[in-house]
Amino acid sequence: MPRSVSDPVDVAHLRKVLDGPWAEVRDAHRDKLDARFLPVHGESGDQARERISRLLTELPAELGMAASFPTEYGGRADIGASVVASEMLAQVDLSLMVKAGVQWGLFGGAVLALGTRHHHDAHLRNIVSGDLLGCFAMTETGHGSDVQQLRTTCTYDPETQTFDLHTPHQAARKDYIGNAARDGRMAVVFAQLITGGQRHGVHAWLVPIRDADGNPMPGVTIGDAGPKAGLLGVDNGRLSFDHVRVPRDMLLDRYGQVAADGTYSSPIADDSRRFFTMLGTLVRGRVSVGGAAAAATKSALTIAVRYGDVRRQFGTPDADREVLLNDYLAHQRKLLPALATTYALHFAQAELVAAIHEVQGGDEPVDEHRQRELESRAAGLKAAQTWHATRTIQMCREACGGAGYLAENRLPGLKADTDVFTTFEGDNTVLLQLVAKGLLTGYRDEFGSLDGWGRASFVAEQVREMVLERTAARALIERLVSAVPGRGEEVAVTDRGWQLAVFEDREKHLLDGAVRRLRNGASTKRDRPFDIFNDVQDHVLTVASAHIDRVTLEAFVAGIERTTDPAVAALLSRVCDLYALSVIEAHKGWFLEHGRLTPARAKAITAVVNSLLKELRPQMRTLVDGFAIPEAWLHCAILREEADRQEAMTAHDQFPTVR
Amino acid sequence: MPRSVSDPVDVAHLRKVLDGPWAEVRDAHRDKLDARFLPVHGESGDQARERISRLLTELPAELGMAASFPTEYGGRADIGASVVASEMLAQVDLSLMVKAGVQWGLFGGAVLALGTRHHHDAHLRNIVSGDLLGCFAMTETGHGSDVQQLRTTCTYDPETQTFDLHTPHQAARKDYIGNAARDGRMAVVFAQLITGGQRHGVHAWLVPIRDADGNPMPGVTIGDAGPKAGLLGVDNGRLSFDHVRVPRDMLLDRYGQVAADGTYSSPIADDSRRFFTMLGTLVRGRVSVGGAAAAATKSALTIAVRYGDVRRQFGTPDADREVLLNDYLAHQRKLLPALATTYALHFAQAELVAAIHEVQGGDEPVDEHRQRELESRAAGLKAAQTWHATRTIQMCREACGGAGYLAENRLPGLKADTDVFTTFEGDNTVLLQLVAKGLLTGYRDEFGSLDGWGRASFVAEQVREMVLERTAARALIERLVSAVPGRGEEVAVTDRGWQLAVFEDREKHLLDGAVRRLRNGASTKRDRPFDIFNDVQDHVLTVASAHIDRVTLEAFVAGIERTTDPAVAALLSRVCDLYALSVIEAHKGWFLEHGRLTPARAKAITAVVNSLLKELRPQMRTLVDGFAIPEAWLHCAILREEADRQEAMTAHDQFPTVR
Repeated sequence: MPRSVSDPVDVAHLRKVLDGPWAEVRDAHRDKLDARFLPVHGESGDQARERISRLLTELPAELGMAASFPTEYGGRADIGASVVASEMLAQVDLSLMVKAGVQWGLFGGAVLALGTRHHHDAHLRNIVSGDLLGCFAMTETGHGSDVQQLRTTCTYDPETQTFDLHTPHQAARKDYIGNAARDGRMAVVFAQLITGGQRHGVHAWLVPIRDADGNPMPGVTIGDAGPKAGLLGVDNGRLSFDHVRVPRDMLLDRYGQVAADGTYSSPIADDSRRFFTMLGTLVRGRVSVGGAAAAATKSALTIAVRYGDVRRQFGTPDADREVLLNDYLAHQRKLLPALATTYALHFAQAELVAAIHEVQGGDEPVDEHRQRELESRAAGLKAAQTWHATRTIQMCREACGGAGYLAENRLPGLKADTDVFTTFEGDNTVLLQLVAKGLLTGYRDEFGSLDGWGRASFVAEQVREMVLERTAARALIERLVSAVPGRGEEVAVTDRGWQLAVFEDREKHLLDGAVRRLRNGASTKRDRPFDIFNDVQDHVLTVASAHIDRVTLEAFVAGIERTTDPAVAALLSRVCDLYALSVIEAHKGWFLEHGRLTPARAKAITAVVNSLLKELRPQMRTLVDGFAIPEAWLHCAILREEADRQEAMTAHDQFPTVR
Repeated sequence: MPRSVSDPVDVAHLRKVLDGPWAEVRDAHRDKLDARFLPVHGESGDQARERISRLLTELPAELGMAASFPTEYGGRADIGASVVASEMLAQVDLSLMVKAGVQWGLFGGAVLALGTRHHHDAHLRNIVSGDLLGCFAMTETGHGSDVQQLRTTCTYDPETQTFDLHTPHQAARKDYIGNAARDGRMAVVFAQLITGGQRHGVHAWLVPIRDADGNPMPGVTIGDAGPKAGLLGVDNGRLSFDHVRVPRDMLLDRYGQVAADGTYSSPIADDSRRFFTMLGTLVRGRVSVGGAAAAATKSALTIAVRYGDVRRQFGTPDADREVLLNDYLAHQRKLLPALATTYALHFAQAELVAAIHEVQGGDEPVDEHRQRELESRAAGLKAAQTWHATRTIQMCREACGGAGYLAENRLPGLKADTDVFTTFEGDNTVLLQLVAKGLLTGYRDEFGSLDGWGRASFVAEQVREMVLERTAARALIERLVSAVPGRGEEVAVTDRGWQLAVFEDREKHLLDGAVRRLRNGASTKRDRPFDIFNDVQDHVLTVASAHIDRVTLEAFVAGIERTTDPAVAALLSRVCDLYALSVIEAHKGWFLEHGRLTPARAKAITAVVNSLLKELRPQMRTLVDGFAIPEAWLHCAILREEADRQEAMTAHDQFPTVR
């Protein structure tokens, strides 16, 4: 018998569930990061860069952004802690989080993952300490998503035993590179390796870009990406190389070596496969971005929910009742499903962080199948979380009216800073294709360019129906699904097994349909391979979305199962109902079209969603308090003022009295 | 026999159709506003305010932002021209447009509409010339949407023959007031009028707020709203009044007069009705904001479409074919329906501008029924256009990848500047309620607070089924609807009459359902009047959206009917198909749920949408060129560079050659 959601929930218990296994990392951030680290509104780009550069070096070392590095270099060998640290930093200042992510995640992470012992010994300690600041120079002006096709070259010359790093034309310029415009001393530069007259695909080199005085090194041209929509504190720049000599040992040579005589060798023969293995080691960046987006979403929701809990919009005709913004159904329709989705994604992210910690954190070689799954999950959840952030923060800003447009109320900064997340560390649409490709090929060892489309024959050969990826909680899920009492119309829409079955069925049916359409296309459009995939691109992207929806719901269900406090579990269960039914409601066209819902049941779902909103209305504040964002971190004038104002209004804001 | 869309379209002809009756106003702006008026990226708030203030006074007088004023004060008595001017200015710089809108639309407009001859003679010439800058001080910190409940008081004292203007507490402070923080010398201040011990509701006074040296007048406290998400060039501020003495003749007394002895008189007896009549005269602000949002949307779409027409994302497996961003189905799915909606809204806006010009521009008294319709239309289209702008500009920024995040590519500015439009000049959700209320009461002479909810008895008495509002093209629409060949499944989904009937049927059915639910609620929840409306608020808002969809489609259809160039008409007809079917596709859940579409037909609509995307792909560039935005106004680095770069890449961007 499930408890009623009206049982009082102890926020500390809810917080404990949400904080999860790295609770002490979260608490350390909450304790140590004071007002000094918060954004300053209205500062110039130069001021923001100066401040963030300074704060980066002042981050208390014990906090954990560099926790992923081995202990011998000053880290804690704790990958999960480093991801959680970036989530926490994102609630303090997103520029600071991104700057730290560039330094320790991308730059340091690449040196660690792609370099070998001598690179590590030479540089990791200084990278961890922040004494050596660096860049991750992959993206080029002309090649954003298609990183396998980078145009920068690095050509080995056995005579001098150096590489010649060169930018052949403007489209090959490295662009949007964090830490480049102001602070970076070195860069991990990705380029096409050429030796002995042969190309061997993209590799990475550690290249000094500034001397000790901060001047560009000879042959290196450094530009500034200029003002951006947000993240003003991050110095994004542009790098070009004019036949820069790079010593042989600066090749990060874990996955490819060049001998003194120019002989190339690698443990992975195929260029493409090697490159994607290299990229795969850097998956943590996407996990961190997804987590940071979620963290900012929680800040925005906390602000909007708390404002809506004290703000009145209109006088009410019920004399004995005070109507607050959060009492309006339309307001609940905006805030509560977004809040439920934020909860669902929180559990999915937590599961992903635990998985990456386990897969990449051990001493054994990484299991390739699990690594592929991890990459797919990271790509999908990054897309889902960053789009959810963009939509939700926008909605929160509107929910706060004109106040939401003022910098002092934090929402403009959250919005502008997170906006780029939907296209950096992988464009979301491209990432969804990656997810779909994984589903379509059943995680076979298929490597190829990130767009996933290849030879026409590929389709006929590789695309096949696959067993749905098992999530961590597969046994639990199967038990719930098989326990559904009765079929279709008879089952309550709040039955968890029914909800899970509906999500799974949608993914499966969409996937089967995509396979069928691709096979048909492969037989009729053999001479137009681009069209085979392009004609079903919308369908394929929907498959990926449906997959992420299912994975997210299953993670939420598993999270509730682990919750021991009955009142918290009951509340989460209601929130999970709202999440599941909101998703079904949003896609009811598909369910009706495919005979999965009757019109009567579709209407019933809308009615149940509205009744869940009513039921959860009194819990809105508890739900955002569970995020446990320190009061100072909210950094929001209306929250400080509105409570006072409402008190003043109750006391003094009578309608003008007349004599 | 409709022409094929593949007939070559003369962009000049398309432009002529879009430019409409105020083409010469549009061209004057295109000619006169050079690069000097364009936004400067990365400037500080102070720099932006200084620049925009200066440019405001340098706007060529003939351009028309002040065209709405009578000729005797320097205007042209041309209301349509003033709205079109604000659309054009919005494509140059949104801060400049908003600053001009505050000065001539809100401040000057209020003096003109609410004042009488002696106010006009004393001030309008200086307002038109820009020598007297002013504010529109309505919104209060504690009262945004509920402007009828403002707390500022203005109490008449017959002894001194002055009013006492007073801010009783902080929640009554005037907030977000444009032109207040830096430049305004006077303000139109809205406050509760009290005389002879009686309240008479909200009126407006013309109040000096700064002296000739720019210092606040005695008793006036001026604050700064501080940094904002965008519109940095607009000096939003806060005004408080500490028993400020205002001469009796500074009451803008067209709708309410106070005699020397304090006797109050008005041509409109009811306070509430008088107030909404006063507000109604200011409807032009909403029309201008909607138009400005549409103008910015066109700029963003032009940038994204042109970028997508030269940018490659991935290499293609078809050796003989260059695949550009715009060739991807997913990219077309993002850009083209948004472009089609922009076209549809363009025609709806043009119809609205013509209507306001006719209704408010004549010498005869304004027809009250038409005025009510105008207000409802303006509210609905403002909401539709500003939400469409927010969504579409965001999508365009993502469609340009990392480049879309750089200020030099304009999209960040368009996004940040237009964001506030969804909540200023009326919060969009509140405006939709206003639209719904108009539909529910059949435009009876029902006035009430903007939230639309009143006594419980109101529902039972006033809510009734109503004849759908007739749009300008009603006869044409009825002819098309009645010409539908056959019923339901048999008719092509591209049949215009069928599309119109579907939109109308949805609105009608939703409206009937809302009426039924409200009546039921009124009989069962008589003691909880707030709940009667709140429980159906989502339904009621959907009614309003469906209404705006229909009005928009009908305006588009009427616009095509007026188009004489056959190739342009054929293209517009296809765009209209895409608009209509995208809307139906987006709401297919509803149509299936209510038996309006069979599953097979719902699937067919998706297939037709995809084939329309293919058909319109070659016309994307033509469609944005039709907006005729001067090249310099796009002010976008990637458009300048990308063409060169692509040329360079074709020539030099070979894959690294090896010896």
